[in-house]
Amino acid sequence: MPIELSTADADFAGRFADFVDAGRETATDVSAVVAGIVADVRARGDAAVVDLTRRFDRMEVTAQTLRFTGAEIAAAKDRIEPDLHAALELAADRIRAFHAGQLPADHDAVDAQGIRAGWRWSAIDDVGIYVPGGLASYPSTVLMNAIPAKVAGVRRLVMTTPTPGGTVNPLVLYAAHLAGVDEIYRVGGAQAIAALTFGTGTIAPVDKITGPGNAYVAEAKRQLYGRVGIDMVAGPSEILVVADSAANPDWLAADLLSQAEHDRVAQAILMTDDTDLARRTAQAVDATLDALGADVARESWARFGAIITVRSLDEAPPLIDALAPEHLALSIADPQAMFARIRHAGSVFMGYRTPEAIGDYIGGPNHTLPTGRRARFSSGLSVADFMKRTTFLDCSAEGLAAVGPAAARLAEAEGLPAHALSVTRRLG
Amino acid sequence: MPIELSTADADFAGRFADFVDAGRETATDVSAVVAGIVADVRARGDAAVVDLTRRFDRMEVTAQTLRFTGAEIAAAKDRIEPDLHAALELAADRIRAFHAGQLPADHDAVDAQGIRAGWRWSAIDDVGIYVPGGLASYPSTVLMNAIPAKVAGVRRLVMTTPTPGGTVNPLVLYAAHLAGVDEIYRVGGAQAIAALTFGTGTIAPVDKITGPGNAYVAEAKRQLYGRVGIDMVAGPSEILVVADSAANPDWLAADLLSQAEHDRVAQAILMTDDTDLARRTAQAVDATLDALGADVARESWARFGAIITVRSLDEAPPLIDALAPEHLALSIADPQAMFARIRHAGSVFMGYRTPEAIGDYIGGPNHTLPTGRRARFSSGLSVADFMKRTTFLDCSAEGLAAVGPAAARLAEAEGLPAHALSVTRRLG
Repeated sequence: MPIELSTADADFAGRFADFVDAGRETATDVSAVVAGIVADVRARGDAAVVDLTRRFDRMEVTAQTLRFTGAEIAAAKDRIEPDLHAALELAADRIRAFHAGQLPADHDAVDAQGIRAGWRWSAIDDVGIYVPGGLASYPSTVLMNAIPAKVAGVRRLVMTTPTPGGTVNPLVLYAAHLAGVDEIYRVGGAQAIAALTFGTGTIAPVDKITGPGNAYVAEAKRQLYGRVGIDMVAGPSEILVVADSAANPDWLAADLLSQAEHDRVAQAILMTDDTDLARRTAQAVDATLDALGADVARESWARFGAIITVRSLDEAPPLIDALAPEHLALSIADPQAMFARIRHAGSVFMGYRTPEAIGDYIGGPNHTLPTGRRARFSSGLSVADFMKRTTFLDCSAEGLAAVGPAAARLAEAEGLPAHALSVTRRLG
Repeated sequence: MPIELSTADADFAGRFADFVDAGRETATDVSAVVAGIVADVRARGDAAVVDLTRRFDRMEVTAQTLRFTGAEIAAAKDRIEPDLHAALELAADRIRAFHAGQLPADHDAVDAQGIRAGWRWSAIDDVGIYVPGGLASYPSTVLMNAIPAKVAGVRRLVMTTPTPGGTVNPLVLYAAHLAGVDEIYRVGGAQAIAALTFGTGTIAPVDKITGPGNAYVAEAKRQLYGRVGIDMVAGPSEILVVADSAANPDWLAADLLSQAEHDRVAQAILMTDDTDLARRTAQAVDATLDALGADVARESWARFGAIITVRSLDEAPPLIDALAPEHLALSIADPQAMFARIRHAGSVFMGYRTPEAIGDYIGGPNHTLPTGRRARFSSGLSVADFMKRTTFLDCSAEGLAAVGPAAARLAEAEGLPAHALSVTRRLG
């Protein structure tokens, strides 16, 4: 049974604080195993990748067959039902259009002192995206990582995905093709992250790696962060659905379960000012679970689900901010007014007719979002994550004369005489 | 003696590759010590902070005296020579003006399908900045971290700095005052990072921590990354000075040493097409070292310094990109043309009259920059580092009808039936 909290209860504050602090991330310590895999791939390159792939993915592979051929990628299209072609293409087009609006602007200006300053954005050269295999091998993951990278202008976009027992999801290959991925390798796990970082004979190294993965992939990214760029530390997914009495319990139940079905440690929370709606939604969740026979969603809802009753939706904003949810669905009459009152959420789904699933696939905004209250300080994936900014400064003689003495004075005060000399020698 | 490389040498490619790959970051393993400090502060709060501060900073302190009082901060101003007031104020004003131009724009648009989508930026609520104590206690560090945070709109900006033996740099306190820091604590090391992350009785927790620090501070930030946001993994500083025959050897020598004097493992590199200039600059470096008696700079230049001779400056761009330097000084006749040909650098200093030290203090752009070739994939500190972006999606009934069926089809193909239901129930 999901936890039930009500702001009308005397002990609400303490119970809500405990609920906010309760972690769902299991601390599997895989660091030693991952460190061994990373060292092996760094030392032996392709040979290590081939050995580890045979062992973990139970398949024969050689350095020559690690990379998917153009024929294999082209053949994937034929294995997909035609209506899925159109759906993927519509999704790719809409995601591309949204992210194209995120390209950042350069800046170049001369100030009153005659000093020119600004910045220039440029794409990261080589990027790797990791796509999980098996049951969580999703074409939407490919689109949401690869399209922003290509919009940014990444010149070489490499994808790795494990193919356990040789099985690959043709939708993943076709999505990669649609998104403009340049190279695809049948490698997964920590060995894929290490191969992308250090390079092997077959796989040239990249500068940054994005994409979700299991505990081994996440730990490898954490260990190699700094040597390569990474996207984020991602935890289990969550949704907070805020509903008023006009919301439809069957719609809300599907919204809650669409999060819960991702993962046994996913979290779905309903917040409402209508106790009758809360009751009817809980019933609809149970009925939907029975109809779907969804074990993962059932466990997530029972263990981590929650129903929070508020006396008035005026109480909602600080509670929403405390939860800082990855996904915030506002199934209320005036979602815009509520949005204006909250500060922390990864992505917001406005009104009765915007299910979060639209954002997962086709809305346009990225579905890679900060989890576990990290929306307090971080953002979803964007085009800027595939770029970097170089600032610049250009002093005229007059500009240097105007600001140089103050800089030299500060350098002396900081005990850095060569800094001061580099200015005063030019002023002399 | 600094290493000497020339593109005219037959073995240049291999030697340059080794030079690029050579690490300067020492792998001090402080992880166990830091984990112990973090656990202690998390469990015992102020009591742990007080104990650790007594031990590491050799000073008496209580929970009540951890925070600098307004009177202490005001008194700092009187301990500073008046001309330094003006220099710090000019620096603060220029840094503020530059960063104000970095405030990102929101986006809100309805597309042809009737789907509204966009994003909204907002400041991070609570931010902590770490400022080292002792010899590397710099007011410029305060300005470069605190001003972008306040430009972003951070509502509570907390600074921690160790005061070994009770000593504090009054310039650091005055810079914090100028920059609008809200609270200052005399705490340093891993205990400061843990206190900012978990909070203590005296110090309320923050959402993100920025600023440089020693190996303990860096390891604490790495361990707590995810629980709080952090700025970056920073390594030892470096500069690449590219010079043509019209450059002044004495100016170049000061530029090289202004980097070398930061740290025994800092790196200063000269690249030039003029062997005579190279020789005269090396002599000027030695003369300047003798005049300054600078041990740190002398060791850095001898161990990690380099002079790279190119046959023509046309050879420079790929070498610059391979080094991806934190600081790139272009002491050449046409720096703009060279800038257009390179892709990776943290910050560029254009022309003969722009010493890097201007950027350290007063130019405007941030001096917190990616080191150790990380300019390939990351950027200097900016206003956006103190903000986060919330995306949103708002479907009209028509919009949902237009894109919903494709989303439901993709959800089914991914084996996520509740996702599909959350769409189809609304289409019914």
